[in-house]
Amino acid sequence: MKAAVFHAPHQPLELVDVPTPEPKTGEVLVQVAGCGVCHTDLHYIDHGTPTFKPPPIILGHEVAGTVAEVGAGVTSLTAGARVLIPAVLSCGHCTLCRSGRENICENSQMLGNHIDGGYAEFVAVPAKDIVHMPDDVPLVEGSIIADAVTTPYHAVVRRGRVTPGDWVAVFGCGGVGLSLVQIASAVGGRVIAVDVKDAKLETAKRFGATAVFNAATTKKFDKEIRALSGGGVNVAFEAVGKAVTQEAALNSLITGGRLVLVGYSPETLPLNAGRVMFREIEVLGSLGCRPVDYPRAIEMVRQGHVRLLDLVTHRFPLERIADALDTLRGGDAIRVVVTP
Amino acid sequence: MKAAVFHAPHQPLELVDVPTPEPKTGEVLVQVAGCGVCHTDLHYIDHGTPTFKPPPIILGHEVAGTVAEVGAGVTSLTAGARVLIPAVLSCGHCTLCRSGRENICENSQMLGNHIDGGYAEFVAVPAKDIVHMPDDVPLVEGSIIADAVTTPYHAVVRRGRVTPGDWVAVFGCGGVGLSLVQIASAVGGRVIAVDVKDAKLETAKRFGATAVFNAATTKKFDKEIRALSGGGVNVAFEAVGKAVTQEAALNSLITGGRLVLVGYSPETLPLNAGRVMFREIEVLGSLGCRPVDYPRAIEMVRQGHVRLLDLVTHRFPLERIADALDTLRGGDAIRVVVTP
Amino acid sequence: MKAAVFHAPHQPLELVDVPTPEPKTGEVLVQVAGCGVCHTDLHYIDHGTPTFKPPPIILGHEVAGTVAEVGAGVTSLTAGARVLIPAVLSCGHCTLCRSGRENICENSQMLGNHIDGGYAEFVAVPAKDIVHMPDDVPLVEGSIIADAVTTPYHAVVRRGRVTPGDWVAVFGCGGVGLSLVQIASAVGGRVIAVDVKDAKLETAKRFGATAVFNAATTKKFDKEIRALSGGGVNVAFEAVGKAVTQEAALNSLITGGRLVLVGYSPETLPLNAGRVMFREIEVLGSLGCRPVDYPRAIEMVRQGHVRLLDLVTHRFPLERIADALDTLRGGDAIRVVVTP
Amino acid sequence: MKAAVFHAPHQPLELVDVPTPEPKTGEVLVQVAGCGVCHTDLHYIDHGTPTFKPPPIILGHEVAGTVAEVGAGVTSLTAGARVLIPAVLSCGHCTLCRSGRENICENSQMLGNHIDGGYAEFVAVPAKDIVHMPDDVPLVEGSIIADAVTTPYHAVVRRGRVTPGDWVAVFGCGGVGLSLVQIASAVGGRVIAVDVKDAKLETAKRFGATAVFNAATTKKFDKEIRALSGGGVNVAFEAVGKAVTQEAALNSLITGGRLVLVGYSPETLPLNAGRVMFREIEVLGSLGCRPVDYPRAIEMVRQGHVRLLDLVTHRFPLERIADALDTLRGGDAIRVVVTP
Repeated sequence: MKAAVFHAPHQPLELVDVPTPEPKTGEVLVQVAGCGVCHTDLHYIDHGTPTFKPPPIILGHEVAGTVAEVGAGVTSLTAGARVLIPAVLSCGHCTLCRSGRENICENSQMLGNHIDGGYAEFVAVPAKDIVHMPDDVPLVEGSIIADAVTTPYHAVVRRGRVTPGDWVAVFGCGGVGLSLVQIASAVGGRVIAVDVKDAKLETAKRFGATAVFNAATTKKFDKEIRALSGGGVNVAFEAVGKAVTQEAALNSLITGGRLVLVGYSPETLPLNAGRVMFREIEVLGSLGCRPVDYPRAIEMVRQGHVRLLDLVTHRFPLERIADALDTLRGGDAIRVVVTP
Repeated sequence: MKAAVFHAPHQPLELVDVPTPEPKTGEVLVQVAGCGVCHTDLHYIDHGTPTFKPPPIILGHEVAGTVAEVGAGVTSLTAGARVLIPAVLSCGHCTLCRSGRENICENSQMLGNHIDGGYAEFVAVPAKDIVHMPDDVPLVEGSIIADAVTTPYHAVVRRGRVTPGDWVAVFGCGGVGLSLVQIASAVGGRVIAVDVKDAKLETAKRFGATAVFNAATTKKFDKEIRALSGGGVNVAFEAVGKAVTQEAALNSLITGGRLVLVGYSPETLPLNAGRVMFREIEVLGSLGCRPVDYPRAIEMVRQGHVRLLDLVTHRFPLERIADALDTLRGGDAIRVVVTP
Repeated sequence: MKAAVFHAPHQPLELVDVPTPEPKTGEVLVQVAGCGVCHTDLHYIDHGTPTFKPPPIILGHEVAGTVAEVGAGVTSLTAGARVLIPAVLSCGHCTLCRSGRENICENSQMLGNHIDGGYAEFVAVPAKDIVHMPDDVPLVEGSIIADAVTTPYHAVVRRGRVTPGDWVAVFGCGGVGLSLVQIASAVGGRVIAVDVKDAKLETAKRFGATAVFNAATTKKFDKEIRALSGGGVNVAFEAVGKAVTQEAALNSLITGGRLVLVGYSPETLPLNAGRVMFREIEVLGSLGCRPVDYPRAIEMVRQGHVRLLDLVTHRFPLERIADALDTLRGGDAIRVVVTP
Repeated sequence: MKAAVFHAPHQPLELVDVPTPEPKTGEVLVQVAGCGVCHTDLHYIDHGTPTFKPPPIILGHEVAGTVAEVGAGVTSLTAGARVLIPAVLSCGHCTLCRSGRENICENSQMLGNHIDGGYAEFVAVPAKDIVHMPDDVPLVEGSIIADAVTTPYHAVVRRGRVTPGDWVAVFGCGGVGLSLVQIASAVGGRVIAVDVKDAKLETAKRFGATAVFNAATTKKFDKEIRALSGGGVNVAFEAVGKAVTQEAALNSLITGGRLVLVGYSPETLPLNAGRVMFREIEVLGSLGCRPVDYPRAIEMVRQGHVRLLDLVTHRFPLERIADALDTLRGGDAIRVVVTP
């Protein structure tokens, strides 16, 4: 089968023919319909963040497609089924998995990181984590649900616990950030969006944001947010992954508010611990999404609460994966999908 | 009446005769039986932290006594009632008060900070916040419940939400820390206590700690805690108020764990935001205690879950307030009480 | 002022001139813009349910208007302010009020039940419970928010805790039921509506219901609901107030599901306790709404999640209160409003 | 191996030699040290409640012992390990299992009901559900943890969510009820115990109950409970399984209180739905315990919060299983254990 293989940082992915994987016991082989291109891939390629499985490895963790073949012992799926593959697969055995927190499984495996991913014609994965995709959600664009929609779903619903009428601030309006805006708005939040690009902020408005601030051009925008929201927002989401934005997000909160860290940041956050204590602020990490919540996130798309077709701004055939990655690097795309 | 008045930092409190306050409408006059001496008082006196009401002001915020007189409109209390006065009085009108979060009331007033406190024979306070003290809890020692027991109650029960079987770490074994140890143990936590004084750690053991570490003499004690608890504690409480301890507390947590900031720290905490995100850690501020939870904290004392008499290591008459403060400065006392 | 006074069951309300009330200390006088007509009023008039304050009493508990005059000590409101009056006023002092549960205050007072209500030109109420109404929500139709929108808000958000992707069933599609449909749909629920009138079910569909069942003509509709929702709904709301409907609602639940009782029923519910135990079902009462949540419910209206103008199907001048009540009795109206 | 086999209702168990089971892939063979005798067994034998697997079947679902042999693919356990077997084994795959609710797994299998249980020398079970037993908890008496302690743990901690200072009522003081008393007391509840036998009530007092009522001899004991607890208890547990007791438990609640149904009842509970609604009461089913919580329940025993040795009042060798069952039928035993 065709695949785009990652060999080393700072090198283009290599488009080659590799053996089509065979589904082992308990696995299914999925024919990839679309695979979302995510900034995480750029971390491996451009910044040298190591993959868990050393290269060569096929990247790509946002995959939708159809079941091509089922391995031994698989009874829950049959060939032809339309499916979405969770970006991260859980072990199902550790205490966290068995406590309803599979998203922070101690032995998780990520597509295109621990195991071969979706920049290929086929991918083999454990059947237990596969999610059914309804007929009225397209597979190509639907692929991005596997991270760009489920991660925000988890952040808004399970971690931020946004309640109708809450003031909400979203910092960063990329693919994840704009889904945060949409889901938080859908559930009745009054969303204030922050980014450094006006085009992204315009999209945020179309996606339900009540107000927007350009962090590059607005002085003391955290103070502006507090003023607009009558003292501060109830929940702030940081989807940029920078300490300076995390600080601004913290400062935008009302007493008793909640900061959810969605974007990965390698930086140290200089936390005003006194403020956190006196105002009983909560700083909460948010990672991925539980497989059991995938059908819920898909349902948000199906109902139109998340406008998938507007999130996927660019599509490329797998052969043009280099262009797909370049488009993402450009910063104007929301989400890019490749199709084998 | 006799009172110990605070005039300025770095000066001893002045023992003088002042007019006994008269209870206004909705207030009661309480004859002080005992008033706990807290490190917060040393902040004003030794470190120059300003009081909200500029001096002269009577300090002291841990007060128990008997109702001496009731103001107009007060029907819920009568003279002679044994009572505890919450350290912080709430407005009852703001959104936080009306949402079940009176402890972070936007207009709160603290005894011995916003209004005259308990280093005196009498104190006048709003009747609505006064709590009944059962006959089998002594008033003199019981005074410290008003902060040294209720603050830990709130931290363990409402913020840390310690669950039976949880591994718990308590950093700092002063008056508040030792109550954290007792309450967390009482509800079924396996408590690991950390301090820099062996004597405090011995007390922690007597109060229910499963294991103790001397942070001054144990290398990498956060690693030791993780090893002992099978990967890290579920909940860590920081009651010291130092960034370095807060960091150690964070590092002692298991994936999905919770850090509760109980001690006030003016320092910046250099937070490993990536760790917080990837492990879905929660960093939660904790402040005071809701008045409705005061009877619950008192009940923990009454049932013997919190050993009040062992917490109060020193007693002084009000005339010797200077000795009382010196004893606290010495660092060997757990809790000191003055009696008018 | 003009008022419609209730004297005794089975008699028409009497339209008379009564003295305009004067706002006491802490109260405001509100000039009524609109007052919703609720089935509760029919309970007093048609069924002899006693009012807490014996007649004569002015009924009506869904009131919006403008502040006409403020009593002594009121600083939070000024004349001319557009306001909504909560249907039920809380004491602010009991343990429940101070625990964030004002809606089940032990000393609550209901408009048009404990005190004079809104079938009049003016009404005097405590200022502390008055809620600001934004300019873009009309006062006449907005009056029904005070019960027909806030009660469903509380039921969906605080009691049912509907989560995006949940299957939800709403039994009864009157004014309260249709707001349940709208709010549960808004927050991402997949709503199945049940009623005995096809016209109501059509409205439910327009308001967001995914599927509807006519309970009068569909055999074993609880079984149908379980089939449609893949085993049963996560949350069921009963807004009819009949034991037979409550039983059907219980039977429509999936294992681990939640039944919320919103409609008052004087009947005994023959509960299958074994089913509740083995399936860990929750049966939860839901009463009114906390004043702090009123602004949130209003915001749901302002954002268009609740379509107020479609809920108010009939308007009458106060002089025609008899016609307004008859229209409600007819059963085809959703919500009726009278304007003085 | 020796085993006591159930053939049909109303017949004694047959003591016979059967082939020792062989552990399949993923299973372990456990040498039984002790097996608790539970009223559930009497349901099969005396009342004709059918077992899921038709007889012949070996009953007994409270088993502790040592691993004798491990099946293929098992790496988590080795021969000689001291273990407890959860009474109910989960599938690990259904939505409930993956949502942190394994105790209500859709495909659960109960020892001595779906599969052969512990009235035998050996039992073979899936390794994934086996729990390690600490050295300082005895195996013979520890066997009863598998139901008589874990079920109360789940009921008190996960369903009743008893909070320190809560008033709690426990109806029924058998093995499960007395563990409810102990665990609810341990976590700071003020427990009122109710039974019809004075001897059981005396034990309840020794186990931490603040007050007791004999339901057979106290008129209107629900009213007495409300009076004693200042209006009603916050949480009531029903461990008898009778509608009349469930009703009394409901009537003992304060506004906003919670009734947890722990005992199975085949009867219809005539629920006062109006009371549930107006007082926002919660009626919650409670079933078994999640395997991840077993170590927590064991820890409660290890810490002495649950006094195991006082719960096991009778021990019999397996050969005297008939006497063991008779002793339980007699009603004076708390818990009976058989040892092979």
